[in-house]
Amino acid sequence: MASESTAQANIGVVGMAVMGSNLARNLASREGNTVAIFNRSFEKTQTVLDEHPEAEFIPASSYEEFAASLSKPRTAIIMVQAGRGTDAVIDALTSVFEPGDIIVDGGNALFTDTIRREKAVRETGINFVGTGISGGEEGALLGPSIMPGGSAEAYETLGPILSSIAAVVDGVPCVTHVGTDGAGHFVKMIHNGIEYADMQLIAEAYDLIRRGTGYSPAQIADVFTEWNKGELESYLIEITAEVLKQVDASTGTPLVDLILDQAGSKGTGVWTVQNALDLGIPVSGIAEAVFARSLSSKPAQRAAASALPGPAEPWGVDNNEAFIEDVRRALYASKIVAYSQGFDAIVAGAEQYGWDIKKGDIATIWRGGCIIRAQFLNRITEAYAEDPGLVALITAPYFTAAVTGAQESWRQVVAHAAKAGIPAPAFSSSLSYYDGLRADRLPAALVQGQRDFFGAHTYKRVDKEGTFHTLWSGDRSEIQAVDSH
Amino acid sequence: MASESTAQANIGVVGMAVMGSNLARNLASREGNTVAIFNRSFEKTQTVLDEHPEAEFIPASSYEEFAASLSKPRTAIIMVQAGRGTDAVIDALTSVFEPGDIIVDGGNALFTDTIRREKAVRETGINFVGTGISGGEEGALLGPSIMPGGSAEAYETLGPILSSIAAVVDGVPCVTHVGTDGAGHFVKMIHNGIEYADMQLIAEAYDLIRRGTGYSPAQIADVFTEWNKGELESYLIEITAEVLKQVDASTGTPLVDLILDQAGSKGTGVWTVQNALDLGIPVSGIAEAVFARSLSSKPAQRAAASALPGPAEPWGVDNNEAFIEDVRRALYASKIVAYSQGFDAIVAGAEQYGWDIKKGDIATIWRGGCIIRAQFLNRITEAYAEDPGLVALITAPYFTAAVTGAQESWRQVVAHAAKAGIPAPAFSSSLSYYDGLRADRLPAALVQGQRDFFGAHTYKRVDKEGTFHTLWSGDRSEIQAVDSH
Repeated sequence: MASESTAQANIGVVGMAVMGSNLARNLASREGNTVAIFNRSFEKTQTVLDEHPEAEFIPASSYEEFAASLSKPRTAIIMVQAGRGTDAVIDALTSVFEPGDIIVDGGNALFTDTIRREKAVRETGINFVGTGISGGEEGALLGPSIMPGGSAEAYETLGPILSSIAAVVDGVPCVTHVGTDGAGHFVKMIHNGIEYADMQLIAEAYDLIRRGTGYSPAQIADVFTEWNKGELESYLIEITAEVLKQVDASTGTPLVDLILDQAGSKGTGVWTVQNALDLGIPVSGIAEAVFARSLSSKPAQRAAASALPGPAEPWGVDNNEAFIEDVRRALYASKIVAYSQGFDAIVAGAEQYGWDIKKGDIATIWRGGCIIRAQFLNRITEAYAEDPGLVALITAPYFTAAVTGAQESWRQVVAHAAKAGIPAPAFSSSLSYYDGLRADRLPAALVQGQRDFFGAHTYKRVDKEGTFHTLWSGDRSEIQAVDSH
Repeated sequence: MASESTAQANIGVVGMAVMGSNLARNLASREGNTVAIFNRSFEKTQTVLDEHPEAEFIPASSYEEFAASLSKPRTAIIMVQAGRGTDAVIDALTSVFEPGDIIVDGGNALFTDTIRREKAVRETGINFVGTGISGGEEGALLGPSIMPGGSAEAYETLGPILSSIAAVVDGVPCVTHVGTDGAGHFVKMIHNGIEYADMQLIAEAYDLIRRGTGYSPAQIADVFTEWNKGELESYLIEITAEVLKQVDASTGTPLVDLILDQAGSKGTGVWTVQNALDLGIPVSGIAEAVFARSLSSKPAQRAAASALPGPAEPWGVDNNEAFIEDVRRALYASKIVAYSQGFDAIVAGAEQYGWDIKKGDIATIWRGGCIIRAQFLNRITEAYAEDPGLVALITAPYFTAAVTGAQESWRQVVAHAAKAGIPAPAFSSSLSYYDGLRADRLPAALVQGQRDFFGAHTYKRVDKEGTFHTLWSGDRSEIQAVDSH
C-alpha cells in the first residue's frame, strides 16, 4: 500500500505506447495536473521520460510504486491494447488500489467486457470506468473526444481531469458522462461504426468521380477541399483531400494509386453491426462498409472474378460539374442515413442496457477531437434539443429538408453506378433504406405469407386484431392462432 | 437403467409439439422403425397416441421408461424449442442412457452451443449429434433435408435411420454426415441465411413488378408460376405463387394486401450474419434481407418517415413483359450472389472450426425437403464436382455464363428501383457486390490512406514489398513500418 507522503500525482497513465504516452503528455500539459506513468517494461517509460522532460512525469517501476505516487482518490487511465492485457492490468491495479480509487480503461474494449469488468471491480469498492477515446494519436496528444461510462460518483473526480484534456468546440469540452458501466465504450463503438460508413461513402464518391469524369486524384482533392467549405465540412473530408493530394516521392505517382486496395479493420465496425443485429436495428450503411472492406481483402476471389463482365456499353458522364454536384448531394443524404441508423442503435442500446444516454450530448461531444467530427453534428444536437423523443433522426425537419434537396441527385448517382458497373454498396444501401422507411406498403407482407405457408409462423392483418394462420395444406381457410410462433 | 427385455424401439423422439410428432410419424411410417415417444407432460403424448394409432408408438411417461423402451445403442432425437429446454432434456437423457448411446438434437440450436454440448456429452461416453432439419412441419412429416454433425461413429447407426425419413431426389436421400460436432447446425444456419436472402429477393421482385406494371397479385402469381418452369424453379417461387393467388374469403381482397407488412424472424438469419462478420465474409445479400425485416417492423419510424419525399416524376415501365423479364434475370443473378456468399461462409466456417465439409454434398442434400430446395442446386453440385477448390461459386463457368446473360437486365432493374423510389436493398446490394468483386481497383486504397492518416494503421503498396506509413503530421515522407497495427 502507498504511503501518503510520496503521493504527488493526481492522475496516472498505464501503458506507454503511442496512445498512452500522448495522452499522458496531454494531461501533463494542462494546468494543475501531475502525471504518474507506468509501463510493463521500464525501458519505454525511460524513453518517454528522456524525450519529454517538460512533462515532469513521475515514473514508476512497479504497480506498488505507481500507486504510492498517486494522491487519493487514486485515478489511473489504462492505455493498453484491448483484450487480455487489460484484465491483467486491472488485476494488478485492484491489488494496489483502495476503495474509492478509480481505474479507467481508455482502450477500445468491447462494451460487454466493460460491463463485466465494472461489475467485478465494483465489488472491491474501487470504481471502474470504461471510456471511449477517439481522435487517434494526434487527438490523444492535442485533445480527443472522450466518452466515459461508469458511475456518476467516479465522474465527479474524473470529469474535471478529462475536461482539461478534451477537444473544445465553442467553449464546450468534448466529454460527457455517457451513462453507467459500459455506456461509454458502447457509444465509442457506434462512433466507430459510423466512421466506417462515412469513410466508405467518401471512398465511393471518390471512385464515382474518378471513373465518371476521369479527373486525377489531385483534381478530386480540390473537389473535396471545396466540399469541406459547405455542409459536408468534416475531418474525414479534409484528410481525404490531403491523402488524394499526396504524390509518391520516388515515382511521382499519386500515392492513392500505389496503395494496395485491400482495406483492413480492427473489429469495432464488426461489433457495431453484430450488436445492432441483436438489437434489431438495420444499420445497413455500416454493414455495407464493413463488407466492402472484407470483400476488398479477398485477393484470390477478386482475381478469379476479374473476368466477370461489366456493362457492354460505357456509361459516360455528360457534364462533369453537374455530376460532381449530384455525387456531393448523394454523399450528404447517405451520410444522414448512416447517422440516423447509428443513433437508432444508440437509442436501442440505451433501452436494452438501461442507460440514460442523452443523444444531443453525444452529438455535441463528437463535434471535436474525434474522427467523425463535423459541422453537421450541431444539426443533430439541435434536432434532439427540439424533440428529445425523435423516433428517427432523418425525420427531424432539418434532415428531412436536406434529403428532400438531395434525393433526386441521390437517385441519379445510384442509377449511374448500377449502369456504369461501379460498386456503390453504401450509396445504394442508404437509398434503399430511405425508400423502405418511407414506403406506404412493403413486400414484407409477402414474406409473412411465405413464412406462414412453410412454417405456420402466422401473420397479423391490417383490417382486424389478432393473429392468423391460413391452412395452406388444407382447405386454405383462415383460422385464428392462439399465439405466434 | 433399462432392462433389456422391454426394449422394442430402435429410435425415440422427445418433444411432441408439431415438429416432433410429425418427425415421429415419419419415422414410424418407414419399414423397420419402431418409435418410442416422450413428452414432458404425458397429455400431449396421449393426444399423439390417440390421433395416430397407425404409428404404433411406444409411449413413455418418464425418462427411465423411455430409455428402457429403446434397443441399444439407444438413439433419441430431441425436438424441443432451442434454448435452455434442450440442455434440460440432454441432462435427463444422459442420466438414463449409457456409453455408446446416441442423443440427437434436431432443434435449431446455435452451432456454438452444439459444439459445447457435444464436448460435454462426449465425456460421458454417450454420442451427441446436433442436426439441422429443414422443411417445416410438412417436411418433418413427409421428408425433410437433414444436416447431421457429430462423430462418424454415431453416423453409422444414425445414417440409415435418417436416410429412411429424408426427402429423396433422383434416388438420393437428402442427408449426409456434414462434419464433426457443430457442423450440421452450422450448415443449417447458413441454409436459413440463404433462405432469408432468397425470400427478400422474391419479395423485391414482386414489389417491383406490382409497382412497375400495376399487375394484380393474381396476375403476378401467374408470372411466378411461369418462372417456376425455368431456371428459377424452386419451392419458394412455387409457394409465392400460391400466396399471391390466395383471396381473403370474407372481403374478396387478395390476402397479401391484408397481411400486416411487418416481417418477423426467429434468429438464424441474424446468427448467419453475425458469424460471417466474425469470419470476415461479406454476406451482404443475407444482411440486407435481415435488415429489411427489421426495418419493416418499426411502425413508429415508418409512420414518421411516411412524409419523406419520393421521386418528383413518376418512373413508369414502357413494356411490361420486357420489364418482367428484366426482373426475372435480376432475381436469378442476385440469387447466384446470395448462394455464392453463403457457400463462402461455409468454406470459412469449415476452415475456422476444422470441419471437412463437402460443398457439393451440401448442395445435393438441399435439393429436396428443405425450404430453399431448387433445380439450381444441381448446378452447384456440378460446379464443386468440377473444381473442388473453386474460390467463389460465381466464378464457376455455369454461373459466370448465367450472370453474363443477366447483368444488363440486373443493372436496368436496380437503376429503375433507384429512380422510381422502390426499395430494392437485396437486388442493389448483390449488384454492388458483383461489381466490387470484379473491379480491377477498389477505393479501398483511399480507405487505407485515410486510416494511415488518422490512426497510423500503415498500408501496403502495389509496387513493392513491405508495410509503409506516411508521416502525415510531419514532412509527409514515407517510412517503412515494422508491423501493421
